[in-house]
Amino acid sequence: MIGFGVVGQSFVKLLLSRSAELYTQYGIKPRIVACLDSHGSAISPGGLDLERLLHAKRARGTVGFYDKNSSKFDPIHIIETVDAEVALESTPTNLNGAEPGMSHIISAMRTGKNVISVNKGPLALAFPSLIELADYNRVMFRFSGTVGGGTPILDFAKRCLKGDRILSFKGILNGTTNYILSKMEEGLTYTAALADAKQKGYAESVPSLDTDGYDAAAKLVIMANWVLGMKVTMKDVRRTGIARVSLSDVKKAQEAGKAIKLIASCDNKHLEVKPTEIAKNDPTCVDGTLNAVTFSSEHSGQQTIIGRGAGGMETASSVLRDLIEIRDIVSEKIAY
Amino acid sequence: MIGFGVVGQSFVKLLLSRSAELYTQYGIKPRIVACLDSHGSAISPGGLDLERLLHAKRARGTVGFYDKNSSKFDPIHIIETVDAEVALESTPTNLNGAEPGMSHIISAMRTGKNVISVNKGPLALAFPSLIELADYNRVMFRFSGTVGGGTPILDFAKRCLKGDRILSFKGILNGTTNYILSKMEEGLTYTAALADAKQKGYAESVPSLDTDGYDAAAKLVIMANWVLGMKVTMKDVRRTGIARVSLSDVKKAQEAGKAIKLIASCDNKHLEVKPTEIAKNDPTCVDGTLNAVTFSSEHSGQQTIIGRGAGGMETASSVLRDLIEIRDIVSEKIAY
Repeated sequence: MIGFGVVGQSFVKLLLSRSAELYTQYGIKPRIVACLDSHGSAISPGGLDLERLLHAKRARGTVGFYDKNSSKFDPIHIIETVDAEVALESTPTNLNGAEPGMSHIISAMRTGKNVISVNKGPLALAFPSLIELADYNRVMFRFSGTVGGGTPILDFAKRCLKGDRILSFKGILNGTTNYILSKMEEGLTYTAALADAKQKGYAESVPSLDTDGYDAAAKLVIMANWVLGMKVTMKDVRRTGIARVSLSDVKKAQEAGKAIKLIASCDNKHLEVKPTEIAKNDPTCVDGTLNAVTFSSEHSGQQTIIGRGAGGMETASSVLRDLIEIRDIVSEKIAY
Repeated sequence: MIGFGVVGQSFVKLLLSRSAELYTQYGIKPRIVACLDSHGSAISPGGLDLERLLHAKRARGTVGFYDKNSSKFDPIHIIETVDAEVALESTPTNLNGAEPGMSHIISAMRTGKNVISVNKGPLALAFPSLIELADYNRVMFRFSGTVGGGTPILDFAKRCLKGDRILSFKGILNGTTNYILSKMEEGLTYTAALADAKQKGYAESVPSLDTDGYDAAAKLVIMANWVLGMKVTMKDVRRTGIARVSLSDVKKAQEAGKAIKLIASCDNKHLEVKPTEIAKNDPTCVDGTLNAVTFSSEHSGQQTIIGRGAGGMETASSVLRDLIEIRDIVSEKIAY
């Protein structure tokens, strides 16, 4: 486990609470053999004690206090030398160069580890290259948690619409901006709504990752690559944030039975993120921190999937899904 | 192919239009070796000519005119003696005994054929027994098209929420009643809205299958069995239709920011279909002929999936998904 923030800790709690069922239902009994955060590391080839790991983080702020052997700390060295089947990269998303996540993922793949990433940065900036690197090293690369949190948006598109051809998709991929726009519908100004979002913990102190549409654009890039097979990165997205949406714009839309939403869209050619008026009874028109995506397919029509786009435990459940899938595919390969 | 109505014909058109891609992408090249409708049959072990099959149906009203050899007509005998890997049952849903679909499915399974059903009757009345029969005969049984038409509601629950535990679900499973209730929100009385639905072809001349909640109840039973592993049939559903919903009920709900919808719900113990007030901004609150289901899971929270619940081509796309899945599993078994 590389990174041990909210998602990492939730994932460990999930393993603790569901270990019996994971074994009986899916035949897996995951061991965590190494865990790094920004200040230290804990390593145990036989498997770390998960309660103790959580305790070290909670009580001392870093997993480095898990035991006495964990003082030395070189993330790349640990990633390359630890014997593990899967690396989970959950360090914070950085859309400006994607480090340190990018180096972590590359090191893990090069040393034959399957990778699960909930970090959007490396995918947004270098999706096509990372897929190639994974193929070259014959490892699997999964990232369900990067789009939609616990809502299986990527899986839905890839699995549930098999046999059909997805032509385009569009929707709300960022909960923070959707919360702000929903609050503006209740009458708050942009500034007041943003302050409210910060106070509730939905927006960062420097909120431009959300409000300028970078986060939605990153998710759009991931979807376009994975769902439609496009080879695109952040620079291919036309991006407009919500900072210039005024209260009078919002009211005008309301009077016409519409709402302004930060819509991310992909029509198989163009990628765009921008504030857009949509009808109130459009299934994509959801309020609060919800995410919603509508897929248009050739034969099965339009389908919308809606859910919370964030949350530690929700995103951890995505990681677990990825892990089960990797395990299923690995066992199949061995069987052949 | 047993039954050759709108879904069956759409499926054949889908095969015609996508044959090249089905072969390159999924490695399948389906042949239809027999096709029955209520008046006749067409049989060809080498594979029927699909254009000719469609033409016979269109021009003469039955596939019996496909060629001169197709005069004799005993459905069960044909199902049992034809050499086929998969039987597609698409005769009309009959919730009063489930025939003739029930006998067709039983005959197909007993003679070792995998079964795809878009007919809800047999599943609503005898889901647990049919699953047992399929297991006993070592055949696969799929029925994606019975719930949600082309919207992969069953697949979503079964595949995309792997590793999590679905605790309950609820939603709108019948498009006709949803259309009627949406029209009542626009001011039409129940009688006028029903007449409008009949005129648009959304409601049958005897509409009680929809308006009394039987159709929604049938889908609820299928979902409860497949998604939650319950062993239930139609008689386990508490069912109330929409005939007693008055225009003043609808208006009262509207004034409170709500809408009355025919909600089917399952909490892992009780199954119920009844008109229910839900908030206008609830993701499940969709208008027109749309279907919407919200799943509540232990870790990944609530997720809603929305789409048209009917349509020939949409439902045919579900059949194709089932066929691809059966083929995938069969090839795997052979590989082992």
